[in-house]
Amino acid sequence: MVKTKFKEVSNSHKLKTYIAIPRIFSKIKGGYVMVSSELMNEYKKLMEKSKEIIIFDSIKSLLEWDMQTKMPPRGILLRSQQLGLVSQIEHKMITNPEIGRLIESIMKHPDYDSLNEQQKRNVYLVKKFYDEQTKLPERLVVETAKQEAIANEAWKKGKAAKDFSVFKPELEKLVELKKEAAEILMKVKETPTPYDALIDIFEPKMTSEMITKIFNELKTGLVSILEKCVSSPKQPDVSILKRKIPIEVQRKISKELAKFIGYDIESEKAGGRIDETEHPFTTGYYYDVRITTHYYEDNWASSVFSVLHEGGHALYDQNLNPEWIYQPIGSPCSAGIHESQSRFIENIVGRSREFWLYFLPKLNELTNNAFSDVNLDALVHAVNLVKPSKIRVEADEVTYCLHIIIRFEIERDLFADKVSVAELPQVWNEKYKDYLGVKIENDSEGVMQDIHWAAGLFGYFPSYALGNIYSGQLLAKMEKEIPNWKEQLANGNFNSVKQWLTKNVHSYGNLYDPADLIRIVTGEEINVKHYLNYLNEKYSKLYGF
Amino acid sequence: MVKTKFKEVSNSHKLKTYIAIPRIFSKIKGGYVMVSSELMNEYKKLMEKSKEIIIFDSIKSLLEWDMQTKMPPRGILLRSQQLGLVSQIEHKMITNPEIGRLIESIMKHPDYDSLNEQQKRNVYLVKKFYDEQTKLPERLVVETAKQEAIANEAWKKGKAAKDFSVFKPELEKLVELKKEAAEILMKVKETPTPYDALIDIFEPKMTSEMITKIFNELKTGLVSILEKCVSSPKQPDVSILKRKIPIEVQRKISKELAKFIGYDIESEKAGGRIDETEHPFTTGYYYDVRITTHYYEDNWASSVFSVLHEGGHALYDQNLNPEWIYQPIGSPCSAGIHESQSRFIENIVGRSREFWLYFLPKLNELTNNAFSDVNLDALVHAVNLVKPSKIRVEADEVTYCLHIIIRFEIERDLFADKVSVAELPQVWNEKYKDYLGVKIENDSEGVMQDIHWAAGLFGYFPSYALGNIYSGQLLAKMEKEIPNWKEQLANGNFNSVKQWLTKNVHSYGNLYDPADLIRIVTGEEINVKHYLNYLNEKYSKLYGF
Repeated sequence: MVKTKFKEVSNSHKLKTYIAIPRIFSKIKGGYVMVSSELMNEYKKLMEKSKEIIIFDSIKSLLEWDMQTKMPPRGILLRSQQLGLVSQIEHKMITNPEIGRLIESIMKHPDYDSLNEQQKRNVYLVKKFYDEQTKLPERLVVETAKQEAIANEAWKKGKAAKDFSVFKPELEKLVELKKEAAEILMKVKETPTPYDALIDIFEPKMTSEMITKIFNELKTGLVSILEKCVSSPKQPDVSILKRKIPIEVQRKISKELAKFIGYDIESEKAGGRIDETEHPFTTGYYYDVRITTHYYEDNWASSVFSVLHEGGHALYDQNLNPEWIYQPIGSPCSAGIHESQSRFIENIVGRSREFWLYFLPKLNELTNNAFSDVNLDALVHAVNLVKPSKIRVEADEVTYCLHIIIRFEIERDLFADKVSVAELPQVWNEKYKDYLGVKIENDSEGVMQDIHWAAGLFGYFPSYALGNIYSGQLLAKMEKEIPNWKEQLANGNFNSVKQWLTKNVHSYGNLYDPADLIRIVTGEEINVKHYLNYLNEKYSKLYGF
Repeated sequence: MVKTKFKEVSNSHKLKTYIAIPRIFSKIKGGYVMVSSELMNEYKKLMEKSKEIIIFDSIKSLLEWDMQTKMPPRGILLRSQQLGLVSQIEHKMITNPEIGRLIESIMKHPDYDSLNEQQKRNVYLVKKFYDEQTKLPERLVVETAKQEAIANEAWKKGKAAKDFSVFKPELEKLVELKKEAAEILMKVKETPTPYDALIDIFEPKMTSEMITKIFNELKTGLVSILEKCVSSPKQPDVSILKRKIPIEVQRKISKELAKFIGYDIESEKAGGRIDETEHPFTTGYYYDVRITTHYYEDNWASSVFSVLHEGGHALYDQNLNPEWIYQPIGSPCSAGIHESQSRFIENIVGRSREFWLYFLPKLNELTNNAFSDVNLDALVHAVNLVKPSKIRVEADEVTYCLHIIIRFEIERDLFADKVSVAELPQVWNEKYKDYLGVKIENDSEGVMQDIHWAAGLFGYFPSYALGNIYSGQLLAKMEKEIPNWKEQLANGNFNSVKQWLTKNVHSYGNLYDPADLIRIVTGEEINVKHYLNYLNEKYSKLYGF
């Protein structure tokens, strides 16, 4: 990897002395390489356009954050107009033909190869996004946006009425539109199948064939662990998690957790904040990254793990390479890599015995001794209860990926015309019985439980499981480099872990596609084994198998 | 006034049947008038552009609100980029030559006179704004923006060091740039003097000659009342205002005040909210109008009156004619009329005996009987203490306008080259001695107390005093139409007053310039007498003269 900082090129370029001469010098690894100033001019223009899009998009994120957290109810009437206008302006910025012209001018320039790795990646990322956004016909984009809104409404109604037939016709139309888009994107992106073109939006270069292979191995491993956990006579007492903790106290717990992981929400240099929403989320960019959580008086652990989960996302967004801010490479790598960071902090750290060795006394102190009678191992087992369930968002570490695998297999077959929308409930229910051994009573707790399909988000689900797999693989590598990380954790020191993640994941931004990043950081291809080893080791101790 | 709703024209125009024929019918007062469909098309295009600008500007307001209330400190690094980009895009939208073309096409169209009053006003307002924004040379706009930032920094430093010489050179440069702009705007707007062109930005069509006449009369009246108050043996005991009230309780008081004036922040249809900032302000548009306040534990009255003041602004913004939303006429009339609404609620209502007759028991209840020993008349006198002071923002009702008159006279003479920047401190201190009888010890409590000049806001100050004058004149009219309004207020009923203000001020939006609005609503020209009568009557009772 060439370690040149693009900033130096850019700065030297500002010097008037250099502007007058046709070629400027770009420092690379101590040597000098000639970069055409004409090419650099075009490159800088492209980066300027890209910067505007990135900043503009961060404004849209703030409008959405405010909508979820602070906006008075009637504000939605103005907000929908604001969001519509912002999307319209953003779309114009993204599909500006000048961007197409600059990309072509740069890529066909005889000196193109003199650009360094980061510059080339920037051009590649802008091109990819530009192609995705410009190759879909306007008619299709507009129709899809409309149908997404209609399907979303039908989903809400159908879910409330436990009646799939309300959702079905609108979902059918949406799937048809998505198939049409996938066919077009398949050609642009040169993916093996149309569905792969959708996956590529969230997990670049990943294919359904690769995922099928990975998920099959994962499934076998998970089912084996699940059976051992379920059949073990040693089961946790989860009543500890239902002790009533006042919400004001839970807010203090959140602050303590944020402090622990190094997500600053209180100091004069804070770049974060925690607010409250129905569904927790993370949003922001570098200097201003905000998370939300939800407090339940009789489920204190819910907000503990959602703060750790969203905090994991936030650390990623905050610790991208600061020199790459406003550049395409100064963005997260993929949905899966993002999820690896949240699951790492939530599960690998937050549900570990060592974390609770440190945090239980803190928790007890903050709650005015509400946990003084609680045994450490009992608590650790309780927060790691393994139990097959019907609802993905409530699933534990062992069963979670099985929920995802079911969704992936269904999406894959749907887009390969092997299963129809009408057959979805039946296929869903069968798979839940096969993989998780649970009986779905109605489609609201079944095929209609998630918003994703109603929102047109096909190809997104695999990222959740891939994130878990990545987190296990990153853990294996980290354990070699920081053998005593658990000891540090038990002493309340999270710093080494945080720095390791920043160095090995956050700071790479979007320089590589996810599979490449994993190979570069861990030294091997994506490998399910590490995540399964982690689970086996952990749950065999907890459940005594 | 033609009472046609533009909405009807617009809707009928959508019908395909009408689009094919060259002229469509616009319903006016039950009859039909021919409006060229070509003209209507151009008009609709202009309104579409104007709507985009209005919505886009509301996004900028949200960015600014968030910056003052919620943004984590490091977020400023991203926010400044966002605000820079938004200003740049907004400037392009406003100065889009297509707007100039549409204006000309509409105004020169042979059927122009067939547009109704509201449509013509919309075109007029777009044209006025377009001219203001396009006639100033780019160089001057950029230089001024830079100098404002520099002057602002110098002002902060100078104020902290109590040293006008730090601020002086930067203010001199800024005044020169503002004079240049004023000269250009004077020609565009055809105002008598350059300074009048600046006043016109905030108080359309108002001139320094008119203001001088009005303020001279006001000054005489105020000085007379002030002398009587100060020399009266009957003086209030203000220690009541210094009782410590926990901030959590003060927040509840704010909610109660918001509920009382009909500013909804709690219901499922709420269109407002109250947050906390160093300096209270109001921002928003129709459905989403937010106010802020500041709580001091040992000065509970401060937030009471700031919530009433900002609440008055908010009621105006929320109760503009809903049919005019996103149109230029669907905006407030002027800075002065806006201030008349905030001062009406803060002072005429909020500092009245009748209001406290109703609210004192509420206050006592909310504060757990912290005021059970307090006599109503003692409290009313305390919140109406008249005392000459050096600082404008802390001034009472009687002296407030004298602070403004001083600033106006100085600005007027500055732009007429009768006084120089170097002479400002001396002129300031002399006027404070003459009008208020106070001795300014240093320039931080003198000429550098306000941010306005450092921010380039010349011509803004008069609006504050005009707002008070308007509020008195509106009161005189309202008293004729609702003779028992004070009785209603004493019973905790604010509804009639609110409805009267909405009908007579809010709902007119920007259909008229301020002087016309006052004439239409009150039946007479701007008349200082009413405000002076109000003060005389109120303070003669309080101070017994």
